[in-house]
Amino acid sequence: MIELRIQLRVDADTRIGPGKISLLEAIARAGSISAAARELEMTYRRAWELIDHMNKAFGQPLVVGHTGSAGGASLTALGSDVVRRFRLVEELARESAASHIAALDAAILTPGSVAASDADSQDDDLD
Amino acid sequence: MIELRIQLRVDADTRIGPGKISLLEAIARAGSISAAARELEMTYRRAWELIDHMNKAFGQPLVVGHTGSAGGASLTALGSDVVRRFRLVEELARESAASHIAALDAAILTPGSVAASDADSQDDDLD
Repeated sequence: MIELRIQLRVDADTRIGPGKISLLEAIARAGSISAAARELEMTYRRAWELIDHMNKAFGQPLVVGHTGSAGGASLTALGSDVVRRFRLVEELARESAASHIAALDAAILTPGSVAASDADSQDDDLD
Repeated sequence: MIELRIQLRVDADTRIGPGKISLLEAIARAGSISAAARELEMTYRRAWELIDHMNKAFGQPLVVGHTGSAGGASLTALGSDVVRRFRLVEELARESAASHIAALDAAILTPGSVAASDADSQDDDLD
């Protein structure tokens, strides 16, 4: 089954996809970067680097650490908004893609099922 | 400006994104893998590997070579269909994402502009 994935390209070096969104969701759920990293089976250092990269790309934090004795971390309003809008966009994109994904899935299962006439319109998309 | 990018995950090892679609489009336009590779500034070997990978993932060719004296290559009906549907899905996804992307762009330009109340709904998306 073909699956549609989305990414937000924030700048030339920063793409936010399902992996980074899952990390943000895990931090919101677990309340700390270390617990989120454990849950996603990545090192604390890797999680911290991903967060630092996102914070810098947005020019403001998506995740903030707590300085109290309990440590911990949480999403900022922007961080929560990025997660929420990413999941909404993902859902909308998958809804609008569903018929096309189904057609490609059918083509994989049934070689030769794509009508040749379908191909004639491809030049429409070229520069 | 944040940009929405899409990928089709065909199997665990195969994601078709804008790069592979551009390669298919270049082959359709140029009529050969080597000309397409030159246009995209990749090696022939790299282009051939990407195509071979896609052909195997779909279980049937998206690109076929011509055996005549002129050489050359073209897209199969399936290859053209993949390109066409990818670009349609991309366009539909970007349309449905536009307001969310604009809101995130505005948040980057105006730190602190995301209302805290917006964040309260984030748990809706968690497992």
